[in-house]
Amino acid sequence: MFKKMKRLLIGRPLKNEALQGEKFGVLWGLPILSSDAISSVAYAGQEILLVLFPVIGMASFKQLSYISIAIIALLIILTLSYRQTIDKYPNGGGAFIVAKENIGVIAGVIAGSALSIGYILTVAVSIAAGVDQITSAFSQLEPYRVLLCLIIITLMTIGNLRGIKESAKIFSLPTYFFIFSILLMLVVGVIKVLNGYEPEPIQVAQDTLQPLTLFLILKAFTNGCAALTGVEAVSNAVPNFKEPSTKNAKTVLVLLSTLVLIVFGGTSIIANYYPIDPDAGAMLIQIAGMVFGRTNIFFYVITALSFTILVLAANTAYFGFPNLISVMAKEGYVPRQLSMRGDRLSYSNGIMLLSSISALLIVVFNAHVTSLIGLYAIGVFISFTLSQAGMLFKWWREKDKNWVVKALINGFGAFVTFTVVIIIAITKFTQGTWIVVIVIPILIFLMLKVKKHYVAVSKQLRMKPEELQAVNVENDTYRNRVIVPIESINKSSIRALRYAKTISDNVIAFNVSIDEESANKIREKYAMLNTDIPLIIKYSPFRKVFEPLLKFIESTGYDYNRGDMITVILPQFSVKSWWHNFLHNQTILFVQRKLLKHKHIVVSIMPLQLKDDDYVLKHPKYKDR
Amino acid sequence: MFKKMKRLLIGRPLKNEALQGEKFGVLWGLPILSSDAISSVAYAGQEILLVLFPVIGMASFKQLSYISIAIIALLIILTLSYRQTIDKYPNGGGAFIVAKENIGVIAGVIAGSALSIGYILTVAVSIAAGVDQITSAFSQLEPYRVLLCLIIITLMTIGNLRGIKESAKIFSLPTYFFIFSILLMLVVGVIKVLNGYEPEPIQVAQDTLQPLTLFLILKAFTNGCAALTGVEAVSNAVPNFKEPSTKNAKTVLVLLSTLVLIVFGGTSIIANYYPIDPDAGAMLIQIAGMVFGRTNIFFYVITALSFTILVLAANTAYFGFPNLISVMAKEGYVPRQLSMRGDRLSYSNGIMLLSSISALLIVVFNAHVTSLIGLYAIGVFISFTLSQAGMLFKWWREKDKNWVVKALINGFGAFVTFTVVIIIAITKFTQGTWIVVIVIPILIFLMLKVKKHYVAVSKQLRMKPEELQAVNVENDTYRNRVIVPIESINKSSIRALRYAKTISDNVIAFNVSIDEESANKIREKYAMLNTDIPLIIKYSPFRKVFEPLLKFIESTGYDYNRGDMITVILPQFSVKSWWHNFLHNQTILFVQRKLLKHKHIVVSIMPLQLKDDDYVLKHPKYKDR
Repeated sequence: MFKKMKRLLIGRPLKNEALQGEKFGVLWGLPILSSDAISSVAYAGQEILLVLFPVIGMASFKQLSYISIAIIALLIILTLSYRQTIDKYPNGGGAFIVAKENIGVIAGVIAGSALSIGYILTVAVSIAAGVDQITSAFSQLEPYRVLLCLIIITLMTIGNLRGIKESAKIFSLPTYFFIFSILLMLVVGVIKVLNGYEPEPIQVAQDTLQPLTLFLILKAFTNGCAALTGVEAVSNAVPNFKEPSTKNAKTVLVLLSTLVLIVFGGTSIIANYYPIDPDAGAMLIQIAGMVFGRTNIFFYVITALSFTILVLAANTAYFGFPNLISVMAKEGYVPRQLSMRGDRLSYSNGIMLLSSISALLIVVFNAHVTSLIGLYAIGVFISFTLSQAGMLFKWWREKDKNWVVKALINGFGAFVTFTVVIIIAITKFTQGTWIVVIVIPILIFLMLKVKKHYVAVSKQLRMKPEELQAVNVENDTYRNRVIVPIESINKSSIRALRYAKTISDNVIAFNVSIDEESANKIREKYAMLNTDIPLIIKYSPFRKVFEPLLKFIESTGYDYNRGDMITVILPQFSVKSWWHNFLHNQTILFVQRKLLKHKHIVVSIMPLQLKDDDYVLKHPKYKDR
Repeated sequence: MFKKMKRLLIGRPLKNEALQGEKFGVLWGLPILSSDAISSVAYAGQEILLVLFPVIGMASFKQLSYISIAIIALLIILTLSYRQTIDKYPNGGGAFIVAKENIGVIAGVIAGSALSIGYILTVAVSIAAGVDQITSAFSQLEPYRVLLCLIIITLMTIGNLRGIKESAKIFSLPTYFFIFSILLMLVVGVIKVLNGYEPEPIQVAQDTLQPLTLFLILKAFTNGCAALTGVEAVSNAVPNFKEPSTKNAKTVLVLLSTLVLIVFGGTSIIANYYPIDPDAGAMLIQIAGMVFGRTNIFFYVITALSFTILVLAANTAYFGFPNLISVMAKEGYVPRQLSMRGDRLSYSNGIMLLSSISALLIVVFNAHVTSLIGLYAIGVFISFTLSQAGMLFKWWREKDKNWVVKALINGFGAFVTFTVVIIIAITKFTQGTWIVVIVIPILIFLMLKVKKHYVAVSKQLRMKPEELQAVNVENDTYRNRVIVPIESINKSSIRALRYAKTISDNVIAFNVSIDEESANKIREKYAMLNTDIPLIIKYSPFRKVFEPLLKFIESTGYDYNRGDMITVILPQFSVKSWWHNFLHNQTILFVQRKLLKHKHIVVSIMPLQLKDDDYVLKHPKYKDR
């Protein structure tokens, strides 16, 4: 039943060969890789205003333009830096790889955890902002914000478990539409202003206004930095480009930055002429409402497109996170299960992990973008810093042609992004970035512990060729005693005894009785079997089965050090309907788990197929029992 | 870690012998068995008023007296009926047993499920009412009602898992204190009235008053019937009485009814002189407040005692429910696990089940007594009806001395309680009793399914003596082939191969490779082992391990019908720390579960003890691997 449901939701399994998807050129690569960066226009400006507006009122819009210029300068630095990463890492240069290869394991692990946090928050922030777009246009949906977010995450999880990649081209159309619609809005907006448009004045509580401080400007800047998240996506994706892949990737990166510049810069400037109340809904939707009017079809188109592009932005994390995690899993820093592809070739465990943590964040922070955005920015900028610093080390070490200039570019990038990290950590410390300050060290500790375990395990298992050749599999000094615990004498226990006989001539039947009466009953029936297998009965005052069994095993004078083994045969019912499992007690599982803690004990599980209830009750063979 | 916590909460395991507790006489038997019935005075009257007051206002208090008289009449009928049950069932005559023995399986199962519902609601209603007592005296606790209920349920669960019975005598003191304090309140109340006490008038919205209808009276009566729940407790507990147990039990039953009569009747009458607003808190607390004054110490004593007796009433279900369920489990109507006693000899599974369902009801119905009381009453009265009807059948069949009179008494009891069932079902249908109407048939269906399964299983397992004698355990035509799936050639797989050799001379090593390259690597290393065990490699395009293995097993020409077996040896890491389990994939468990669906396959699990990570990494032996 569960399996059928899974098939219906997730689809039929796919072959390994299906993994080689189509590679993309500039035309499709741009929208696929840019949705994350471009979509942030939907919340970054707004989050800047949310900091400034309550303090300096209408003066915020001018400050917004200045801060946007700073952010665009940062964007240009990042673009130059990442062009160099693309050149040096044609197989994909994620922050984890670049930092680990060039700085060291710890740096790599920090970058990996910071980037993971960034991906998780891409989902949380984009979905929350996406739902904000909708509720800004349709305010009656406001009370269902968290619920809507969770529904969207669920749908995205299902889609990605199915392997949504196949149709990525279709998904890239909305990005183009979104860009065109924003450009249209900017053009119409400017025309309206030239024709003498006067916005309605906004109510500002003048008496609460305060002077602007550096701290506030930095805090606003921090929020705006969220606009730059997603810029690194291109450098990770180089191998997915058609040849010449490096050149294509660099072209896409430059185009992407140009688009962010136009869209983000444009909205920041136009906001001066269409001032909004940042508490009254999403900025983009408010501006669109003023430019087109709230009943115009374009207003709804922009709402739909900004929602869609935010969902697509969240979806990029569904490629990025599982891939990152699987790379880290292959290297042994996170549980290996995260590197396994599911039936549909998606990294199912990684997808589930991403969805659960971001859903949790949405619930905890009540789908509130402002609370999440600091976490988002700090995660991404830590990985920027380490990635750029790694490149700096690389130039320093390899000393290619023109390395000094290139090192300066990446070095400057590292310096600037590190400064941003410090700014975010300080200005938003009380608003959640302390979480990152605590979580990253914990993640590093855990990852190193995990790595250590995998190394220790492989050291224990590995054998050198000369050791392999020295092994004698046919070791005749190796002995095996078989114990068959029986509850009563029935078909199942007889079957176990017969099987035991085929694997050893040293078999013991073992029973735990609660009282003398049931012991006698067993003894009597066992005698009828006429077998030379000895029956040992122990009395258990605590109704326990396991302890007497283990005590008995340990009392037998076997030489475990020589490698002698005890095999315990446990019968297990194999039931016809899933719910029948609830009707049979799980003692077997419990005993099995406990026995397996002893290295000299092998547990053999013997299934007994139960027949269908109706069949048994109707069949004459079983009638007189 | 988990185990230590369990020990701390639940205590050390107890021996079977500890089961024989002390038996009680009249003095201790009365409070132990009466808390459920007597405590209902704390809510039954109130729930009657809650129906009447909004409709007829101050006239409700007179109606309350009339309805109380009807309920006391019902109590007398029940007392007479149950005295006869005690006579006939000195080993305890629960409704399940009486109905099953005398009417039939279906009647027994209906009585069993109705009684289970009754027990669950005893907990939910008593705890909710108990918390109401507290919040009526301390209104600042009002917002934490549900939370308080859940805390109390948790504490009771822990207490009962420990086996609270030991100290039952101590628990019976509050019952006596409660009875005395209510009697004191009645006496002081009457004296005050005789001295000319005039209550403050209550605000009644005169314009919303309506005429009294029969439907309303019946609905109020229904609520009052909750006062009679718990009367059956004595007849279940006959074997727990000291000799002469039947006589002692009958004495306790009569005393109990008398006490209910005095306490419930008394409060109903005194309410005429101390009218309360049923919406403004618990009736008992309000009356106590008027009689003693809200600052008097007795006011707080009554609050504390009525809370305590309600908790004790809930606690009676912690004996009743697990015992009932275990009786039904032993007969195979509910899963067998419910008949197993835990470490402390309490029926742990039954206790957990009771706590979880009642906690769920508390949460769903927001700890609202009025919403729960209909469910409670209908559950209890269905079991009353079936128990009395069962007795009627018994007299009819056995025709003892004076059987006609006795049959008439039980028959009348059955008729009256059945009438009450119908009244409750109709008057409270929209307020929750429809749940019972749906749930009981579902429970019956499930219970019969469960029973059928157990019968079918035992028919399949059972063997007649002549069959036992015909078994030949030393059957030499019975063959065993062993398959050792290996992922790579390492210590673990070599160990499995060596073990395989000791249990069969027909061993095959089996590997599933994803590509030719890894297949060659395996083949090369395997060759170094110099063993005659053949290695079979299959290529799996779906990254699946199980399917190729099963296909291979099925392709070998073994004769399963003759009883030949395949043993599959799966290695399993036994890790040092619990969290290491997350680092090793669970494919083994998955493969094991799938293989065991095939009756001819035995799965042998071979543990490999992993050493401590630090030990391995520091030990020179492992250094160069």
